[in-house]
Amino acid sequence: MTETLTSSGVRARPVAPAGHRRGVGIGELLLDGGFWGSLQQTNAHATLTHCLDWMERLGWLANFDHVAAGTTGGHRPGWQFSDSEVYKLLEAMAWEFGRTADPDSTEWSHLVRRIAAAQDDDGYLNTCYGHAGQAPRYSDLSTGHELYCTGHLLQAAVARVRTHGVDELVEVARRAADQVCREFGPDGRDGICGHPEIELGLVELGRALGEPRYTEQARLFIERRGRGTLAPIALLSPAYFQDDVPVREVAVWRGHAVRALYLAAGAVDVAVDTDDHDLRTAVERQWTRTVERRTYLTGGMGSRHQDEGFGDDWELPPDRAYCETCAGIASVMVSWRLLLASDDVRYADLIERTFYNVVATSPRADGRAFFYANPLQQREQGAPMQPDAVNPRAEGGARAPWFDVSCCPTNVARTLASWHTYAAFVDDSEGPAGPADGVPTVTLAQYASGDLRVAVGTGELALRVETTYPESGIVRIRVLEVPERPVALRLRVPHWAEGATLAASSVSSPGTEQPSNIMHPARTAHSVAPGWVEVPGERAAGDVVVLELPVTPRLTWPDPRVDAARGTVAVERGPIVLCLESVDLPAGIALEHVRIDTAAELRPYADGALVTARTVELPDGGTGVPPFSSGAAGACTGHDLPDGGAQNPIEVPLVPYHRWAERGPSTMRVFVPTD
Amino acid sequence: MTETLTSSGVRARPVAPAGHRRGVGIGELLLDGGFWGSLQQTNAHATLTHCLDWMERLGWLANFDHVAAGTTGGHRPGWQFSDSEVYKLLEAMAWEFGRTADPDSTEWSHLVRRIAAAQDDDGYLNTCYGHAGQAPRYSDLSTGHELYCTGHLLQAAVARVRTHGVDELVEVARRAADQVCREFGPDGRDGICGHPEIELGLVELGRALGEPRYTEQARLFIERRGRGTLAPIALLSPAYFQDDVPVREVAVWRGHAVRALYLAAGAVDVAVDTDDHDLRTAVERQWTRTVERRTYLTGGMGSRHQDEGFGDDWELPPDRAYCETCAGIASVMVSWRLLLASDDVRYADLIERTFYNVVATSPRADGRAFFYANPLQQREQGAPMQPDAVNPRAEGGARAPWFDVSCCPTNVARTLASWHTYAAFVDDSEGPAGPADGVPTVTLAQYASGDLRVAVGTGELALRVETTYPESGIVRIRVLEVPERPVALRLRVPHWAEGATLAASSVSSPGTEQPSNIMHPARTAHSVAPGWVEVPGERAAGDVVVLELPVTPRLTWPDPRVDAARGTVAVERGPIVLCLESVDLPAGIALEHVRIDTAAELRPYADGALVTARTVELPDGGTGVPPFSSGAAGACTGHDLPDGGAQNPIEVPLVPYHRWAERGPSTMRVFVPTD
Repeated sequence: MTETLTSSGVRARPVAPAGHRRGVGIGELLLDGGFWGSLQQTNAHATLTHCLDWMERLGWLANFDHVAAGTTGGHRPGWQFSDSEVYKLLEAMAWEFGRTADPDSTEWSHLVRRIAAAQDDDGYLNTCYGHAGQAPRYSDLSTGHELYCTGHLLQAAVARVRTHGVDELVEVARRAADQVCREFGPDGRDGICGHPEIELGLVELGRALGEPRYTEQARLFIERRGRGTLAPIALLSPAYFQDDVPVREVAVWRGHAVRALYLAAGAVDVAVDTDDHDLRTAVERQWTRTVERRTYLTGGMGSRHQDEGFGDDWELPPDRAYCETCAGIASVMVSWRLLLASDDVRYADLIERTFYNVVATSPRADGRAFFYANPLQQREQGAPMQPDAVNPRAEGGARAPWFDVSCCPTNVARTLASWHTYAAFVDDSEGPAGPADGVPTVTLAQYASGDLRVAVGTGELALRVETTYPESGIVRIRVLEVPERPVALRLRVPHWAEGATLAASSVSSPGTEQPSNIMHPARTAHSVAPGWVEVPGERAAGDVVVLELPVTPRLTWPDPRVDAARGTVAVERGPIVLCLESVDLPAGIALEHVRIDTAAELRPYADGALVTARTVELPDGGTGVPPFSSGAAGACTGHDLPDGGAQNPIEVPLVPYHRWAERGPSTMRVFVPTD
Repeated sequence: MTETLTSSGVRARPVAPAGHRRGVGIGELLLDGGFWGSLQQTNAHATLTHCLDWMERLGWLANFDHVAAGTTGGHRPGWQFSDSEVYKLLEAMAWEFGRTADPDSTEWSHLVRRIAAAQDDDGYLNTCYGHAGQAPRYSDLSTGHELYCTGHLLQAAVARVRTHGVDELVEVARRAADQVCREFGPDGRDGICGHPEIELGLVELGRALGEPRYTEQARLFIERRGRGTLAPIALLSPAYFQDDVPVREVAVWRGHAVRALYLAAGAVDVAVDTDDHDLRTAVERQWTRTVERRTYLTGGMGSRHQDEGFGDDWELPPDRAYCETCAGIASVMVSWRLLLASDDVRYADLIERTFYNVVATSPRADGRAFFYANPLQQREQGAPMQPDAVNPRAEGGARAPWFDVSCCPTNVARTLASWHTYAAFVDDSEGPAGPADGVPTVTLAQYASGDLRVAVGTGELALRVETTYPESGIVRIRVLEVPERPVALRLRVPHWAEGATLAASSVSSPGTEQPSNIMHPARTAHSVAPGWVEVPGERAAGDVVVLELPVTPRLTWPDPRVDAARGTVAVERGPIVLCLESVDLPAGIALEHVRIDTAAELRPYADGALVTARTVELPDGGTGVPPFSSGAAGACTGHDLPDGGAQNPIEVPLVPYHRWAERGPSTMRVFVPTD
């Protein structure tokens, strides 16, 4: 399946894994506004420059110049892994330039040149180790992050291959990958990196350049892991960096969430490209248990601040949810790989949940500040963020322009720039690896307004998707062009979308619903159950398909084992998790007074919902004992407030969680106590 | 008030603060068995040697020898603060030897000699800084812990003065304190230590040796704090070490709990000895808000693992409660100082809660393993602890013999060895600072079986206390000897003890209840309300007083703002918090199935309680979505299990929390869901 690209072009095809399903390429789907299109615009026009400016200002880019000039040894700004931020920004630029702009821009080549100049003759490239006044190469595999940084360099190069072709950056990456293979190959150093990422980069670059040695090296790294070879980090266990148990024996993800998820993504890539069914099954099993017991309603992963890590099963505190933005992105990366490998719709469902409620939550509307952690409750109202402040983790309920460890902004940037490549996939292989019935299938896994133009066999399927999803649940698809060979079209009905309907009008089947009134398909629509739904019949240019997903607000209850959310309920609307934000409450009423009346009707309200609530008085303090009281159950449960009590309920709006804290400091909760 | 002791003797009087109330001295109260007497025995016979052996084995003691021999510069075992563990052990030994053994033991003098040999000529004493191959003295005030270590040296010396007199250790401490005063005095370096403790040590040594310069130096450290002079620690805010806000402007404790509490204890000492009403009031205000909003039912403080710190108000997760043992001890230290300063019974109540449910929880029954963190819920059953394993923080539900940062074992040791000095206090000052009516008062603040023999004026009040408290709520006090001058006797009725009674028989008032049947005082007893209760009448030898506190099990409900405990209830019995431990459940039923029937009667059972419970089935997994489900409220709340459901409730025993995990690995919860 691998094809080596050497020419440029915005319509470049993706590099497919050995599996037969492939995501669409950078030019195969173009968004035009809407939820994700707008985020892409802001990312392109604000975030990329924002990240570049910060890294220039902090000297993280100049670190490369120092290596090139041989002037290392003085104070080196940034953590030991700051190079990776530069590479993630490069990856974002590759996707963005590939999508819209001149891929040969001066900005790109200038940046690549600075990086290339820092590469040692043998391919080693790192600004923190191995040069005058620095610790030796690979002298601290536990925390040095050298291979981690190289992995991100390789991923940037892969984005470049997929959007443009082989250029100077790709050659730099190739030399770096070769150096890694020599150093850590079967006859080399028996080591692994404390932060997985190199595995991903190697497999993807191997696919992009048709270089099986890279995949083999990734496989070695995967197999070496979990044998306790990494030197311990004080106060952290080997589970922190997944060096406690071999990958294929792991039951559930644990330790540092981003590390666990990057490793899992690399493991799926290796499993697919080496046809290792056992390894793939292991990761699928880990995914299932982790999603069912260690994943937030938002799709966020990581319950603990201490190690930015997974908690135990059912340990999902809303207030101390870590839900690192990067872990959300990494989760999407894993699910995407499993989706292509297995065709299981559950992976697409989780991707959607995570995109809307973690990834979209991080960037501020202007694209110049970010959440690092994404808790589901903010108990104390923070202070407004200083515009130029570096913040440890954007705690306190305000997005920060930059972080001490600033992994999230560039991760958001590369993800938004390539968002549409996660929206659809194609299964058009021939032979035994292809679809069962031999008919190529194009699947829309995520919905966004735009044009899809995807190569199927020798022809092209072109679709126009019109929707304001997720504000509306109506997705209208017009067939613009079909290939000669028949092609199946599949849509995703999300797991929450009970009551969805599908209506299809075909120009080749007169008498069915006409396009003119297809936006109101109630009478001719068929019910469709959650899962993949194949649009019946054959495609022809002019056909219109309308999928209607019920995005009315709904109550969502925590599993009784989620202790931290007992006695509360959340409200969702379509794929969007809503929240109650203090700025939406009447004067004099705080979040802690509100109890949702779950018997009352939920009503849509703007892009959120209106709920009926009762407000309660709370116990006075002043007794000097801990906040627990003995006696009758009612002693501590609060009494109705005169206004807003049981006799006089109030209506309060819930708003999309992903936009919280955009209206100034506030308190917030996703899970609201019930009556 | 300060008196300098130069002679030895187990009956040595305590060194009183400038305030007029003083705790009893090491020899004024002798326990004989019972809850705390047994713990003291185990501490004396097992824990002290255990700690000494570990520190010898790990080389923490040899660090002193290296400084003495001028052989520093090689690998130095232990963290930079390991000296403090040696000093805390010395403090424990001083208390213990003062109480029971030969205070001039060879063990003591040998240990002191090794430490003294490491002291520099100018009094500086630290094994990590300031010598060949080490960083310079005070070059890292944020994390170096030099003054912290010195503070513990000073506290050890104070214990020695209070139990024996001035000896070599005290002279070492005096020289160290003098060095600190020269270095950091009004004309010296304008610095503070990243970990408060020196303040405490200086004030106490100042009292013990009659040296006001030390108190003044402590005052300076207190006033300098909160002005952001400490160099930042990566990823932590200045609040971590209380350098964000000046001490007297702080509203509530925040940041690292042990740091915050040691600082507060030092601030009370300074406030009392400098008659600084404003500073004392500030700490009292901080205490009140912290206790009412940031303190666990156990008295534990610190909700976060990340920084071993306080959370926001109402952030009290049972599962991730940090509740460091040292923070519990530090909380007792603060409350004790405020109790003596104010006579407010609330402080004694919190001390009791914390002693029984945090301090007593840490050591294993054999005194050779300890909890570092004291969570109120254990969700996953851990593996048995390896007998010789060093554990980061004794997570996983098993006490560990030693820790990487091993502050808790020696802190437990010094606290248990001096426990009885927190049990009673005397107010016998004459003049305007004395008690209002001029009558000296002896107050029993904590109950334990033993003999109290306390100097009052020129005479002595001697009492024999007999009780199996807290298993029984009956405390029987026989007056053995009275001083010539009248003396008042006060007892504490804990805040939870509604329905307590007091009966007093006086040999000087014939006709009242006779000692022979005083253990059943129901008929002649008076009701007494929570708070201090003064025993009526005058004391005479032979008098008997019986206090009966209701220790029947009771339900305790979380404040509705404690989100993490919503929909649950705890059971307490007297001062003891109970818990449900998996080893007490019938086969086939896990903790997560149990719902307490709060309408059913609670019954005493051994030293715990029997509760009636219903068991519920829980949702199946396998859906591949996060553990939250939309739809009717019942969808996710579980169904009755055939056995133990609503039709067939079961009875389950709750056991004292402080003894959990003594019967092998288990899961555990203090807050149990209700019906």
